[in-house]
Amino acid sequence: MKTKNKKIQKIVFEIFKKNKLSSKHAKIATDAIINAELVGAYGHGLSRLKMYCDRIKKKLINPRPNIKIKKISQSISHVDANNSIGFVAADIAIKIAIKNAKKTGIGMVAVKNSGHYGLSGYYAEQAVKKNLITMIYTSAPPAVAPFGALKSLFGTNPICFGTPTGSKIPFILDTSISMINRGKIRVAARNNLKIPKDVALDKFGKPTTDAKKALEGVQLPIAGFRGSGLAWMVDILSGVLTGGNHAGKVKDPFDDFSGPQNIGHLFITFKTNLFVNNFNKRIKDNIRTIKRLPKIKGIKEIMYPGQNKYKRLKMNSKKDINITEIIKKDLEILKN
Amino acid sequence: MKTKNKKIQKIVFEIFKKNKLSSKHAKIATDAIINAELVGAYGHGLSRLKMYCDRIKKKLINPRPNIKIKKISQSISHVDANNSIGFVAADIAIKIAIKNAKKTGIGMVAVKNSGHYGLSGYYAEQAVKKNLITMIYTSAPPAVAPFGALKSLFGTNPICFGTPTGSKIPFILDTSISMINRGKIRVAARNNLKIPKDVALDKFGKPTTDAKKALEGVQLPIAGFRGSGLAWMVDILSGVLTGGNHAGKVKDPFDDFSGPQNIGHLFITFKTNLFVNNFNKRIKDNIRTIKRLPKIKGIKEIMYPGQNKYKRLKMNSKKDINITEIIKKDLEILKN
Repeated sequence: MKTKNKKIQKIVFEIFKKNKLSSKHAKIATDAIINAELVGAYGHGLSRLKMYCDRIKKKLINPRPNIKIKKISQSISHVDANNSIGFVAADIAIKIAIKNAKKTGIGMVAVKNSGHYGLSGYYAEQAVKKNLITMIYTSAPPAVAPFGALKSLFGTNPICFGTPTGSKIPFILDTSISMINRGKIRVAARNNLKIPKDVALDKFGKPTTDAKKALEGVQLPIAGFRGSGLAWMVDILSGVLTGGNHAGKVKDPFDDFSGPQNIGHLFITFKTNLFVNNFNKRIKDNIRTIKRLPKIKGIKEIMYPGQNKYKRLKMNSKKDINITEIIKKDLEILKN
Repeated sequence: MKTKNKKIQKIVFEIFKKNKLSSKHAKIATDAIINAELVGAYGHGLSRLKMYCDRIKKKLINPRPNIKIKKISQSISHVDANNSIGFVAADIAIKIAIKNAKKTGIGMVAVKNSGHYGLSGYYAEQAVKKNLITMIYTSAPPAVAPFGALKSLFGTNPICFGTPTGSKIPFILDTSISMINRGKIRVAARNNLKIPKDVALDKFGKPTTDAKKALEGVQLPIAGFRGSGLAWMVDILSGVLTGGNHAGKVKDPFDDFSGPQNIGHLFITFKTNLFVNNFNKRIKDNIRTIKRLPKIKGIKEIMYPGQNKYKRLKMNSKKDINITEIIKKDLEILKN
């Protein structure tokens, strides 16, 4: 990964190595964490490093996993990640999904016994770089209450979709079905910042802007019953289907050390030219047409999903990653 | 289809026959329309019958289509619907998708040159009855403004997901990404009813509860940038990928007789037992766990998507379909 941040990259890599990850796996995990920092997804970045190491120490993440890949068909594979760090399981799975799609037109890879893998969009980018469309689903610890329920059960369960655009900036939609990402609330809580209104309730069911109270309470799904249904869909696709935990059984990696997470993921990939021979031209036309629409006052450009993130990555790669005091302390402990 | 409504069923069938559909195609179209009435999706029911006939008369829907099915692989097929009525194209496509998935584990069928096909969930039910999971995407005429734009371009672009539940009531999520279905606004407009607040803007960008003004204006997507991104995803999956119209080029079937709609659809199907051998038990556990959560005051039961619709279908099948004055008039014209 091109970044000015060779030093912090090396520190994270060495921390993973010290925690018994192989060089190959340490590099995969480090790259994912640094990427999250560079795209501004701090809730998936360095703020999680200590948690991963804690879970390795408590034998809840297996630093030397015996990952088993079962071929179901030329298109379909099943990965048992043996409680590897999620980054490694996801990296293996998306690579198989890419291979399967290149061979047969469509690839589907399910993963079980995995853990938190960071940003879905990060893996989507790998498929898109190989000129594939991809859909990625993962479950997550309880954060969002099903419509009608007073208790969190669904994770923020992102829906991720990526496609080549015929230009260098990929279309990567990576949207959680909660009003706010849990990672963002967690970062706010660690830094004593407030969260927006109408995104979360406290444990008594009252609206709150206090990040700490929100973490104890319930996040609200987007669009009521619709968002709740989408979260349920993701729980089924990534949990029920794959052999992963589901129905609220994925443990919170920060708070629950009673066992491994057993997160499930589902990766679907397919070729862009299955049905048309000019996909790149078609999607360029699509994006151009939408960008040319009349805009709401104050909007300079209609952006497609992934565009802003790409810009942030380019910009931030030229700058030093900002290390907060809390993370500095984490790193000091973890290095020694 | 079991319904008390043999008489109206026969009237609709004869109207389609009179408009040159084959008996087979007339039955498929009639069943879909009666089903929409019975599940209470009136915007996809009899209120569209005159429109279909108008488009047939103007040669924009082909009553005797030469539908071409191209096999891309054992899993993947492409249907050129030759401007058939959408119901017929979708019925053929889901049946191929089912066959492909039964054979290889996963099926993917894209359709181009199709038209409005009613409810995605109706086709999802077919796959679920064959014990498959399914994901269905279709585009629709411009109704929702992309985030940041002052003009409608995306359709209400439903996201549909269906899965067996191990019980007789399937899980069928069929959610448009707009705050309200265009069909519902249309029915409200025809019956001079108001629509809810915060679901649509008039043509000047002002919020409105006047259904007619909303039809001239813009529907709002769910969840701002997130919903806009999901709509864009559906436009790419069902339009750019399939060879169908996209980027706002799908014509409004009621208002625009300048050419066929060329709607695209995408059907993905796969087996439930690809990765686990006890899917039915797993999903039963999943649903049971969620239903047992503590409930918000006033909520009797946490429902999964499709449950209410199934109940409505059962109940309404025992009753006469309510024929409004406007539809009565439509039927009188169409019969003679």
